[in-house]
Amino acid sequence: MKKFNVAILGATGAVGREMMKVLEERNFPINELRLLASERSVGKELIFNGQPIKVQLACETAFSGLDIVLGAATNAIAKEFAPHIVNAGAVFIDNSSAFRMYDDVPLVVPEINPDDAFKNKGIISNPNCSTIITLTAINAINKISKIQTIVASTYQAVSGAGVGGPAELQAEVDAIQNGQKYEPKVFSHQIAYNLIPKIGGEAFEGYTSEEMKLQNESRKILHLPNLKATCTCVRVPVVRSHSISATIVTEDKISVEDARKAIAVCDGCKLVDDLDNNMFPMPLDTSDQDIVFVGRIRPDLTNDKGLSIFCCGDQVRKGAATNAVQIAQLLTK
Amino acid sequence: MKKFNVAILGATGAVGREMMKVLEERNFPINELRLLASERSVGKELIFNGQPIKVQLACETAFSGLDIVLGAATNAIAKEFAPHIVNAGAVFIDNSSAFRMYDDVPLVVPEINPDDAFKNKGIISNPNCSTIITLTAINAINKISKIQTIVASTYQAVSGAGVGGPAELQAEVDAIQNGQKYEPKVFSHQIAYNLIPKIGGEAFEGYTSEEMKLQNESRKILHLPNLKATCTCVRVPVVRSHSISATIVTEDKISVEDARKAIAVCDGCKLVDDLDNNMFPMPLDTSDQDIVFVGRIRPDLTNDKGLSIFCCGDQVRKGAATNAVQIAQLLTK
Repeated sequence: MKKFNVAILGATGAVGREMMKVLEERNFPINELRLLASERSVGKELIFNGQPIKVQLACETAFSGLDIVLGAATNAIAKEFAPHIVNAGAVFIDNSSAFRMYDDVPLVVPEINPDDAFKNKGIISNPNCSTIITLTAINAINKISKIQTIVASTYQAVSGAGVGGPAELQAEVDAIQNGQKYEPKVFSHQIAYNLIPKIGGEAFEGYTSEEMKLQNESRKILHLPNLKATCTCVRVPVVRSHSISATIVTEDKISVEDARKAIAVCDGCKLVDDLDNNMFPMPLDTSDQDIVFVGRIRPDLTNDKGLSIFCCGDQVRKGAATNAVQIAQLLTK
Repeated sequence: MKKFNVAILGATGAVGREMMKVLEERNFPINELRLLASERSVGKELIFNGQPIKVQLACETAFSGLDIVLGAATNAIAKEFAPHIVNAGAVFIDNSSAFRMYDDVPLVVPEINPDDAFKNKGIISNPNCSTIITLTAINAINKISKIQTIVASTYQAVSGAGVGGPAELQAEVDAIQNGQKYEPKVFSHQIAYNLIPKIGGEAFEGYTSEEMKLQNESRKILHLPNLKATCTCVRVPVVRSHSISATIVTEDKISVEDARKAIAVCDGCKLVDDLDNNMFPMPLDTSDQDIVFVGRIRPDLTNDKGLSIFCCGDQVRKGAATNAVQIAQLLTK
């Protein structure tokens, strides 16, 4: 079996570390794992498969001999190094949003549009976390009848803001406990016992960049250029796993029963939908998992062809690291 | 100026205590304030306007001489005592859901349908907390053009479950801090750092009782019998103030600018809508206030005649106690 030379660009961040974990868990056929990061992390040792690996400097010449580079860095870093990665002959599977909307860059959720991955010209983008989770949840419905509109409200965990998010939530909880003040640094306002209905900057007619991703990225992933999606993204004091309340309208009417049956057997999903027995998707239950939990499936009372659902998924895993490693697995098959 | 004999039925609960506070703050013209509760609270003293008042037993004969009874008890208690309250000649302003959908019981949000209050036959119902907050937020839009559909997702504070809610959240945070186990009693699952997408029991086609209130009660309050509303109610680890993400479709198209202008001058609302400067409604900011904050006003990208908003309001105050006292104020004018 062929083994691959893999690098993680941004290895020391939350997503980078999770990528190492997922590569290990999935026994990814690795020859060399190269951990790349900025200057301040160089020399740090991270453990992979029981062996310490020293973090190397991410620089133009760092990519020679690689087959796959998993990107877990910022848009700026992704843009800076993408040409060098491609020139070195590696495929760049990038978790940043830098290239997602480029025509010649596939945007892939392996359960939904695996074939797109093979059309890459050196770069494949990993979609936005909430978009991955929502689309994985409604993929089965879209296969029965094309989705026309999505109205979604998100409940996004603090870890979506990187390793600093959970630390800030904890610091605020501690400060409140001790009657002390804490000045938020990661978030614009206190997130403990609060909600912040803004994620990302302003992008389009009052929508944030994060909110517009659901429409823009879903159109590309689902091959539905006319899909319309309205999204409200809200940060909640949950450590891990994003949740989405979505109401979708399909071309043809789908019964709740048919939707449930389809979701129950859909790749990447688990149907958790038994209201009487208090079983529904919750972020605590999906944390540290690759599966998206889907439940609360009901007819949309405002539209005959609509369905409402509630779904949760670990945004660091399926929403980022796992999805990227799944794309790499596609390429190695 | 006439002074009134007022009772609070269920005076020792979260809403009952808040009613006392609101009556004080608003200098409600009170002759006698009678505090009524179940046997285990009898004899307890609560302070009103600096004076201690002894809690009396809520029983059939407890209502003589009263003008107004503010109900802050369960449906069962409300149903048990309503006939006795009405027979005693008092008006029962009831916060329970027991009578809300009765044809001869007005369901009133004073900023929206004050005239309905005067059609009472002895009972006036106070609407559901999330419904009051949502409708107060979108009332100005409905005045420009009738609302046809609402798709809403709620973010409901733990205090919505009564005084036990915040105590349970705190106990769970403490237990997690100390590495201990805590068995939830008030909620079906851990609420600290989690979400519970079920409030109330199953009521209709997979919707909970809490979720159906938005459609049923809004139809009655807005006098829009054909209004369609789909709602997903989610408990969040916030101590106080409910938030609602709502996408509404009106008969005629309303511009974001017109919606903002109307909400800015609408009774009971405050426009908080400046994304660039990180100003939007947040539960922390609305706690202990009577005003509903409204922001994130944007065009619905799925419907030309739609608008999306995010609003927050203190559900113990405007969502319950304040709204009931406002109804009482209407009657005394």
